[in-house]
Amino acid sequence: MFELSLQSAKTLKECVDAIATLIDEGHFEVGADGVKLRAMDPSQVAMVDFFLPKTAFEKYDVKNEARIALNMDDLSRVTSRYRPEEKLTLKLDDSKARLTMVFKGKHTRRFNLPLLDITHAPTRQPKIEFDSRMRIQGGALKEALKDAALVSSYVVLRADTEGFVIEANGDKGNVTIETAKNDEVLLEHAVGKESRSMFPLEYLNDILKAADAGAPVSLDLKTNAPLRVEYSIGDAAVVYYLAPRVEG
Amino acid sequence: MFELSLQSAKTLKECVDAIATLIDEGHFEVGADGVKLRAMDPSQVAMVDFFLPKTAFEKYDVKNEARIALNMDDLSRVTSRYRPEEKLTLKLDDSKARLTMVFKGKHTRRFNLPLLDITHAPTRQPKIEFDSRMRIQGGALKEALKDAALVSSYVVLRADTEGFVIEANGDKGNVTIETAKNDEVLLEHAVGKESRSMFPLEYLNDILKAADAGAPVSLDLKTNAPLRVEYSIGDAAVVYYLAPRVEG
Amino acid sequence: MFELSLQSAKTLKECVDAIATLIDEGHFEVGADGVKLRAMDPSQVAMVDFFLPKTAFEKYDVKNEARIALNMDDLSRVTSRYRPEEKLTLKLDDSKARLTMVFKGKHTRRFNLPLLDITHAPTRQPKIEFDSRMRIQGGALKEALKDAALVSSYVVLRADTEGFVIEANGDKGNVTIETAKNDEVLLEHAVGKESRSMFPLEYLNDILKAADAGAPVSLDLKTNAPLRVEYSIGDAAVVYYLAPRVEG
Repeated sequence: MFELSLQSAKTLKECVDAIATLIDEGHFEVGADGVKLRAMDPSQVAMVDFFLPKTAFEKYDVKNEARIALNMDDLSRVTSRYRPEEKLTLKLDDSKARLTMVFKGKHTRRFNLPLLDITHAPTRQPKIEFDSRMRIQGGALKEALKDAALVSSYVVLRADTEGFVIEANGDKGNVTIETAKNDEVLLEHAVGKESRSMFPLEYLNDILKAADAGAPVSLDLKTNAPLRVEYSIGDAAVVYYLAPRVEG
Repeated sequence: MFELSLQSAKTLKECVDAIATLIDEGHFEVGADGVKLRAMDPSQVAMVDFFLPKTAFEKYDVKNEARIALNMDDLSRVTSRYRPEEKLTLKLDDSKARLTMVFKGKHTRRFNLPLLDITHAPTRQPKIEFDSRMRIQGGALKEALKDAALVSSYVVLRADTEGFVIEANGDKGNVTIETAKNDEVLLEHAVGKESRSMFPLEYLNDILKAADAGAPVSLDLKTNAPLRVEYSIGDAAVVYYLAPRVEG
Repeated sequence: MFELSLQSAKTLKECVDAIATLIDEGHFEVGADGVKLRAMDPSQVAMVDFFLPKTAFEKYDVKNEARIALNMDDLSRVTSRYRPEEKLTLKLDDSKARLTMVFKGKHTRRFNLPLLDITHAPTRQPKIEFDSRMRIQGGALKEALKDAALVSSYVVLRADTEGFVIEANGDKGNVTIETAKNDEVLLEHAVGKESRSMFPLEYLNDILKAADAGAPVSLDLKTNAPLRVEYSIGDAAVVYYLAPRVEG
């Protein structure tokens, strides 16, 4: 049983989109500190680790910690209907059979979403010691991935002492985007050891979908290891892990 | 034989769209008072009753009353090509084999549309004594139907002494949009007897397609009876009737 | 071997689009005076004759004249990624196996495109003595073709002493757009002999795709002869020839 209120549903809408891009069924943990979700995508290539702290809510009344599963597409369709002037309340009723979402402005709009069965245990966070960290403007990163997409569906991310390089190779040619370490879009450039890995573009695009063009995105890299991507959505922190494609 | 002129074809374009959303072949009666059309949609679920008065025209020269049939898609494609600065003249020539539409601004653009055979007699208007009337802002009504569409392809409209309620139920959950009788978007709330009927969303959306977001839409309701929808498009009045889905 | 630089890639992007609309494989001649391309479309219905003079380039360093073939779709995808603030350099390396395109602004973006085999000899320019020339605003011409498209996929262009007429006929009706010789969108009206030919709309639309709405398009006409279309894209001149459909 819980009742949570948000002054505006905008952040929640963006968070739901950031998760729904990878996950079909979302298992949310509504705990003492906030709302948490950690899950692998169905193909087990990417992981999302999401946290929206209690402080983001206007009212955060959690009697018992709850773990609820929702169809992310259906949830996303509801949160997409938010209006800026409305207040949103999320309620889990006693029977726990459904989540009630009430948008209240001039009218009252009530959506009830059925809960899914909890089908799997919480996912554990991977433990990786990364060799380099790049913090780059979301927009610049997305544009570079669009360049790469012209020739391939995979992209190589390389962090070296000179800067950050994105490369792609294919039958249609090859593309290199070099961002020097003193480039203003590269907000942090920390290289313990040169790192180079290849990743599927489709997943990278999904992962970055909810990242603001102007906001920073952190990339943690290690050769042939998963990539860690982190950015903020309002008060929420979203972290993704993406498995590399190990070149033959 | 007739020759009708409009200062701007904008209203005509919107009227044609309001009819073409339901009707494939439009049988127009060009009479002494204005232009009239009344027809059932091909599936016999909805009716449209359209009237554009003589006063809407700059020139209204009707020698003999005429009844002409046009392919609504083709007509809509032509009226969609209107330009605000052009004057439109509609002419039926002597042979009555085609309708001539002349858009005249800096250039002269002439479209000739073939007339179809008159295949059916005029439709009669249904006689229903409704129990309640809601007048609501077009935009608010459309938004509520979008909310409902998240969970079902049918929607329940309910008018009671408290206000106006739109509901939908489906496997994906349920949705309720309550508009209180004193809500500013509810411009009229007259309930003789509580009324509740279910309607197919697809038809409701088609019917409201040409309604302006800011303009009022009248809804006449009676439990398990057809819905009557009325709104204005410039000088034209459009009335629709929609059969209910009687719940099992 | 050559190295060419452009202050902005915008003109090149538009030129590539103007060619790619008709041609799959572009055979460019990089000569002493500029870059040239002349080719038939795969169906042999239309020809494009393109020239971008040396003066359009900031740097134009051509050691040996070169003839290179590129996949136009792939080239178009690269030029579409231009940014206004970037300078573009085109380089053919020694091995001549690929064209290097470097976009240089704050970052460096390098695209390498493989060269295709030179499969055919240069196309010769048709020699036609036209009977009339119309110069018309690109936007007005495009709009008239949209009107015509409502009823047919072919259009008749007619230049006579009164002006310029575009006509189309089909099962859905017929359309006539008359532009009088003193109409302000008709910038030149020179009729040696009345000319009337029919052309496929799809090709005309492709040919005019890169023409600015505000810029003039020259049409040279002769009854049942190919149409010549010419317009400018920045410093470049693009000429098209389109075969008529001879009416039975």
